[in-house]
Amino acid sequence: MKIIIVGASGTMGSYLSNAFEKEHEVIGIGRRSAIQVDLTSPASIEDMYQKVGAFDALICTAGPTYVGPWKNLTAKEFRNGLEGKMMGQINLVLIGQHYINPKGSFTLITGAVTHEPQKNFANASAANAAVEGFVRAAAIELEKGIRINAVSPTVIENSPHYFPFFPGEIPTTMKQLEYGFRKSVFGANTGQVIRP
Amino acid sequence: MKIIIVGASGTMGSYLSNAFEKEHEVIGIGRRSAIQVDLTSPASIEDMYQKVGAFDALICTAGPTYVGPWKNLTAKEFRNGLEGKMMGQINLVLIGQHYINPKGSFTLITGAVTHEPQKNFANASAANAAVEGFVRAAAIELEKGIRINAVSPTVIENSPHYFPFFPGEIPTTMKQLEYGFRKSVFGANTGQVIRP
Ligand SMILES: NC(=O)c1ccc[n+]([C@@H]2O[C@H](COP(=O)([O-])OP(=O)(O)OC[C@H]3O[C@@H](n4cnc5c(N)ncnc54)[C@H](OP(=O)(O)O)[C@@H]3O)[C@@H](O)[C@H]2O)c1
Ligand SMILES: NC(=O)c1ccc[n+]([C@@H]2O[C@H](COP(=O)([O-])OP(=O)(O)OC[C@H]3O[C@@H](n4cnc5c(N)ncnc54)[C@H](OP(=O)(O)O)[C@@H]3O)[C@@H](O)[C@H]2O)c1
Repeated sequence: MKIIIVGASGTMGSYLSNAFEKEHEVIGIGRRSAIQVDLTSPASIEDMYQKVGAFDALICTAGPTYVGPWKNLTAKEFRNGLEGKMMGQINLVLIGQHYINPKGSFTLITGAVTHEPQKNFANASAANAAVEGFVRAAAIELEKGIRINAVSPTVIENSPHYFPFFPGEIPTTMKQLEYGFRKSVFGANTGQVIRP
Repeated sequence: MKIIIVGASGTMGSYLSNAFEKEHEVIGIGRRSAIQVDLTSPASIEDMYQKVGAFDALICTAGPTYVGPWKNLTAKEFRNGLEGKMMGQINLVLIGQHYINPKGSFTLITGAVTHEPQKNFANASAANAAVEGFVRAAAIELEKGIRINAVSPTVIENSPHYFPFFPGEIPTTMKQLEYGFRKSVFGANTGQVIRP
């Protein structure tokens, strides 16, 4: 399989790239990779797909949001998650549907704060939820057997700097995260939010 | 109680205004009312609150989205729900928290397509879901006893033009809708998605 991973240089993306490139052709993408993308720009997304050509699966583990005190959260800070994690991922699908092979799949990243809010993460709660709502809707619209799911972990084992923000959350292990993505990419599900 | 209803001229808003103005001071607002607001503009929202002054409850039943064929849905059409139903309602809260009385409440509108998608409504699914995610997050951040909920009906009885888009959905009656809003405005819940 030819698999695009957007966010390949990140904590999640580097682990998944490593796991999947043993058996598949993985094309790792970010803002500084050989083929680049800036998720906040539809033109940049179109350009990335033009360069990559046809593919079988897209995984996205890139999703910038504003994380910080509620008292500083205005329409301006809210744009981070809105243009990044939300519209960036939605545009990966709206544009990518014209490049992906039949029976291909899109797997997007969300997170537990969609349903279990934590202080400082309101922007991520909204962006995640939007992506999950979009995933359910896109699943009944996409044609040619193209599938779409989201993976929604809680704070992950390899991000200990986030642990203080998630009291009482048992971290998702990297193996669980990998298997969440495996379920979407290699399974037959569509329109699902996978909690690994 | 002094209750702002944004979207007061609409199908839902006119019914709710009528129901609540028997017992409360209702200020009905839209783009053509005495005090006006354009939800897509934070400056216009700030201006509305300046003119209305302190209040006890805000109900929003205004939430423009793109409704139409998936094949025509690009980043451009997606902006309708993003700037309207999603950011419009989120900005009503981010800005309105500085004007609302202690123990006041915000009640926003979403809809069943958040979890039960229908063809043509992907933009609403995403915008609704974002609002619901935001509601859960804002509930743990708002201070001074300020509450926030969303009401999520399926297609409503007074919108028969939408029935063909919702096969098999038993319409929400206007009375059920009213009681959904009553539960939020006059109850003690917060962070809830009320399915009337
Ligand atoms: N870490 C956790 O515990 C956790 C838990 C649940 C959910 N999540 C979510 O999972 C996602 C990934 O988390 P992570 O910890 O792996 O993040 P990370 O280590 O910060 O990696 C982010 C990746 O996204 C890329 N990126 C950032 N902005 C971009 C843009 N505008 N266009 C294209 N690529 C961009 C970065 O690459 P370049 O800088 O090279 O562009 C990097 O590869 C985030 O959305 C986060 O909210 C994380
Ligand atoms: N109808 C249904 O069956 C149904 C079911 C579930 C959910 N919903 C959702 O419920 C909401 C209301 O539905 P409805 O049928 O009552 O809608 P509607 O009859 O079309 O009324 C919409 C109201 O919103 C106002 N409005 C529109 N754009 C605005 C803007 N940019 N700024 C400020 N006000 C604006 C309109 O007033 P002006 O034109 O005067 O500004 C009008 O009062 C929508 O978000 C819809 O998606 C509807």
